[in-house]
Amino acid sequence: MKTQKLAVIGAGHVGSHVLAYAASSELFGEIAVIDPRDKIAYGEALDQDHATGLISRRNINIHSGGYEEVADADIVIVSATHVYAPDPVPADRQELIKNNAAIIREIMDNIVKYTRDAILIFITNPADTVAYIACNEYDYPTQQILSTGCMLDSSRLRHLIGRHYGVDPKSVSGYMMGEHGYTAFPVLSRLTVGGIPFDQLAEYFPEVEPLSPDQITEHVVQTAYEVFDAKVGVTNAGVAESAIEVARAILLDEKAIYPVAVPFVDGEYGFDKPSAFSVPCVLGRNGVERRLTVSLNDWETKKLNISVASIQASIELAESLK
Amino acid sequence: MKTQKLAVIGAGHVGSHVLAYAASSELFGEIAVIDPRDKIAYGEALDQDHATGLISRRNINIHSGGYEEVADADIVIVSATHVYAPDPVPADRQELIKNNAAIIREIMDNIVKYTRDAILIFITNPADTVAYIACNEYDYPTQQILSTGCMLDSSRLRHLIGRHYGVDPKSVSGYMMGEHGYTAFPVLSRLTVGGIPFDQLAEYFPEVEPLSPDQITEHVVQTAYEVFDAKVGVTNAGVAESAIEVARAILLDEKAIYPVAVPFVDGEYGFDKPSAFSVPCVLGRNGVERRLTVSLNDWETKKLNISVASIQASIELAESLK
Amino acid sequence: MKTQKLAVIGAGHVGSHVLAYAASSELFGEIAVIDPRDKIAYGEALDQDHATGLISRRNINIHSGGYEEVADADIVIVSATHVYAPDPVPADRQELIKNNAAIIREIMDNIVKYTRDAILIFITNPADTVAYIACNEYDYPTQQILSTGCMLDSSRLRHLIGRHYGVDPKSVSGYMMGEHGYTAFPVLSRLTVGGIPFDQLAEYFPEVEPLSPDQITEHVVQTAYEVFDAKVGVTNAGVAESAIEVARAILLDEKAIYPVAVPFVDGEYGFDKPSAFSVPCVLGRNGVERRLTVSLNDWETKKLNISVASIQASIELAESLK
Amino acid sequence: MKTQKLAVIGAGHVGSHVLAYAASSELFGEIAVIDPRDKIAYGEALDQDHATGLISRRNINIHSGGYEEVADADIVIVSATHVYAPDPVPADRQELIKNNAAIIREIMDNIVKYTRDAILIFITNPADTVAYIACNEYDYPTQQILSTGCMLDSSRLRHLIGRHYGVDPKSVSGYMMGEHGYTAFPVLSRLTVGGIPFDQLAEYFPEVEPLSPDQITEHVVQTAYEVFDAKVGVTNAGVAESAIEVARAILLDEKAIYPVAVPFVDGEYGFDKPSAFSVPCVLGRNGVERRLTVSLNDWETKKLNISVASIQASIELAESLK
Repeated sequence: MKTQKLAVIGAGHVGSHVLAYAASSELFGEIAVIDPRDKIAYGEALDQDHATGLISRRNINIHSGGYEEVADADIVIVSATHVYAPDPVPADRQELIKNNAAIIREIMDNIVKYTRDAILIFITNPADTVAYIACNEYDYPTQQILSTGCMLDSSRLRHLIGRHYGVDPKSVSGYMMGEHGYTAFPVLSRLTVGGIPFDQLAEYFPEVEPLSPDQITEHVVQTAYEVFDAKVGVTNAGVAESAIEVARAILLDEKAIYPVAVPFVDGEYGFDKPSAFSVPCVLGRNGVERRLTVSLNDWETKKLNISVASIQASIELAESLK
Repeated sequence: MKTQKLAVIGAGHVGSHVLAYAASSELFGEIAVIDPRDKIAYGEALDQDHATGLISRRNINIHSGGYEEVADADIVIVSATHVYAPDPVPADRQELIKNNAAIIREIMDNIVKYTRDAILIFITNPADTVAYIACNEYDYPTQQILSTGCMLDSSRLRHLIGRHYGVDPKSVSGYMMGEHGYTAFPVLSRLTVGGIPFDQLAEYFPEVEPLSPDQITEHVVQTAYEVFDAKVGVTNAGVAESAIEVARAILLDEKAIYPVAVPFVDGEYGFDKPSAFSVPCVLGRNGVERRLTVSLNDWETKKLNISVASIQASIELAESLK
Repeated sequence: MKTQKLAVIGAGHVGSHVLAYAASSELFGEIAVIDPRDKIAYGEALDQDHATGLISRRNINIHSGGYEEVADADIVIVSATHVYAPDPVPADRQELIKNNAAIIREIMDNIVKYTRDAILIFITNPADTVAYIACNEYDYPTQQILSTGCMLDSSRLRHLIGRHYGVDPKSVSGYMMGEHGYTAFPVLSRLTVGGIPFDQLAEYFPEVEPLSPDQITEHVVQTAYEVFDAKVGVTNAGVAESAIEVARAILLDEKAIYPVAVPFVDGEYGFDKPSAFSVPCVLGRNGVERRLTVSLNDWETKKLNISVASIQASIELAESLK
Repeated sequence: MKTQKLAVIGAGHVGSHVLAYAASSELFGEIAVIDPRDKIAYGEALDQDHATGLISRRNINIHSGGYEEVADADIVIVSATHVYAPDPVPADRQELIKNNAAIIREIMDNIVKYTRDAILIFITNPADTVAYIACNEYDYPTQQILSTGCMLDSSRLRHLIGRHYGVDPKSVSGYMMGEHGYTAFPVLSRLTVGGIPFDQLAEYFPEVEPLSPDQITEHVVQTAYEVFDAKVGVTNAGVAESAIEVARAILLDEKAIYPVAVPFVDGEYGFDKPSAFSVPCVLGRNGVERRLTVSLNDWETKKLNISVASIQASIELAESLK
């Protein structure tokens, strides 16, 4: 007899948008905001809770609290990150591990005190390494841990292709794989627009300047940094919405295929060292219910190798910091 | 300074569900229900209007009226159909043209008295012939006329594939083409599941019994008749939702690619006689802004030929009834 | 690790609209449709399930099934009713008890075999007597049983006042009490429009013809019959939406105050015989968490007495049919 | 044949949340973000536009631009404000006029170059003075100008009462009036909870510690500052949602009664000097279609006098800055 509950850990720019989208959904009857900066957590929760008096908002119980709040949470979204201000945030997500490894370990230390039932959705960067640490260093059910990984990169890919060809990004079927960061790459061999494969687009859209795989890769990665630069070290709205999209698929047991980051430890794709990266995964009420380790063409394989090397370096760095 | 307006023509089983979904959206501030059976139109409108006092419903003005209501409508959805009761509804949609040709002509005669601005979305069967009549016999902007055509058949295709492989139908990219009826066919050469082409599915889902193109075609067509039989001559919920989905893409100018039925008069696909059938179309604020006349493989081409022959027979019948 | 589940018992005109609104919400990951007419249940479920392939519908698992489906349901909505066709449906809801008493008893006999955890929301008429039977004749937690009662009547009241004064019905605060039927009455002593009490409305809206309590009562009751007559024995859209509104308040633990029908057995309001009728109740995750037995003025008290007499007669009739 | 359009002026903390809620609605097919800090506007728009590739987001065209973007906007929401950082934001909203008067005049100078059709919704503080300037100094249709005023304060009032009595804030009917700031006051003589007047609450909730009018007033005003302090000079989520709520009522022509701030120049309430403050207003497609200048009791009248004095001082200051 309990209502569905979300715990958001980290009440910064990302967390405040996670709250906004979660509070506007019908998925949760209770939302707890957890942040070592208690006052910020309190302020963000209260600001949203005030809005429950508006006619189009449901009466969700939004409040701040300590880690004990995760005990009965169905979903935990982790958006905590080291605060660099007044120094600039490093643009290289892998750089962030130097500070965020300790933050994630502290969060996981606390989560496992209270629950092994919740599905954990990490937004904290570097997303892949963070998912790896949470899975590998803690006795927590593996399929209940994921990072939003290439969810947003994939949305940006569909956005780029959609805007370029003048169609709805949702009419583009496709995704990015690999690292959530500089080395993410589009799986163009599997991308279609209204059922038209990427390499046949020129035939149907002769008036549109074609884009090469490298151009697309660069654009998708760079557009993230355009937001990051323009917003002075922040990208938050898109990634927050990605996390809620993942939560929705899980809570409604949708079996949706989304490109989220999960740990790879068994030599899939031929890597002999463990890592974590994004592949299309089937998401349901139990979390990551299946991984689709899709085959890649040569260009994509090369890109994946580069991506995994980058992630493995980050993981090694993270492990040296224990 | 006007609110967006929907006119629904036909207040039967389909029209009542169109109303339900339209009234739950934020797309329209006014909805008019038109039906020669004034009382039914009044009852359906009033039942929905009563619900505007519930907290989760916006205060939309829902009322019945005459054809003059289309004058300032942005969208007109036509779900009118001949009432066979107490006789059974014919299962063959093409059979319906014997009665529905006159109904559609009366509706179009009335619509053109008041507007050439609205986008007209036809649900009335046979959907393809109906769209053809509206385009061909009336001086109404062609790109503002469409039928929901294979929208629902395509949803059924994705539903079949999704349920069969244990994934979200929305993670299936694919559509049906041709007639909205017995001869509709899946464009399996362009269907993917999480980016995996139809002919590679066995590799990724070895535990799942593969489905042949003919099995899929038959199932998608038959599942419609399962609903039709179980509901004693009615299928309404899915097709009503399809029509609102189309309206949403248009009003928000989404440029979504949806498989709707449009007239073909210029020899595309090599047919020397005009017809109307579903192909993926780009839908925006101006209606059908582009058609993607995708190439087909041999099996699909054969299927299209059968489909178009069926539709052309129906069109000829409709023309003989003028 | 289960998704929220709805079971709908009764797949007729009301049940099909309950399905439509439930399937469009984010409240349920699974919906089971139960009806002794298995085929109808199958058809309604399948029609809605087909639509999960549309882009704006979430992938909810909608299927038909037997009573065992209520075992893990969070919410059960009962919209089953005797089918009179081809005979006309009696207009007096109390008349319906002659057939519906047995139907409700059969449904409750089956529900209690599988669960005492679900919240039961009855739509079946006569709503008050039905709620009374379910509470009184079965060992089921009382606060988990309610009927939609005056939910829709109250929406009609706000709709009437809102349309009459030219304002949003949601800007009207007010409700009907008593029987869901001929003898329901508006609690005008507690109704406000934008904070203006009913008896001060003339001062602020001098251009509007005032309405007397009797006119309002008659209009609210009659407008239901206008829908019932126009739709030939059916009112479904508004009441279905009311039931989902109640389900939403419960699942999100909103503590919303809604006028639903609950049994009265302890002499509240001075009645020495038990009955069931609508008062404003606080609805949360445990069901009816509190009743607000608001005081009434003389006119309202007289009306309540008439209403309760009518319900008690119906209850006596129901008990004689055991 | 145009889609509904929103222009957001000001891309700071508030503007980014306005964007988030607007982009999640179905109200707009296009959203333009305008800010003299072009880069910020670009970043905020792009971050949201990226998310159009997610399955639950509609394909809305979100972009930054210059003032020419208001030319075809249906709604303009103004959330621009002076940036104090690194200095602290003054807590007294009236203090803000020293910088914001010039900002609002520059914005209005630009808006009137392009349109007199849009409805203008001001969030910029001091909200009342800002609405006054826009109405009084520009030849713009008065009923098309409003400030969110006491929308959020009223939501906070309902939130306070709802949480205190353990009921849904939406089951509380009531509002704040006067200044959006220190001197706002609750109109408790018109507040009801489930139809129970404020002064009868103790009778129905004997277990709850009663709150005095002064306690409530102080709490509602202070809770805003709790958010402001906790979030270091920012309150944004609730007020952004309030603005979208107002936009929704307007675009859907709801005739909703909301407490927004409008100019008073004709001696209503007996003030001989013009000002602007919040009263319940009927909002429809034409903007502020009616004001309900509700009568007040002695305590409330005293409070209104204090409030208007404060606003008039602010207006005088604003006028001295021309």
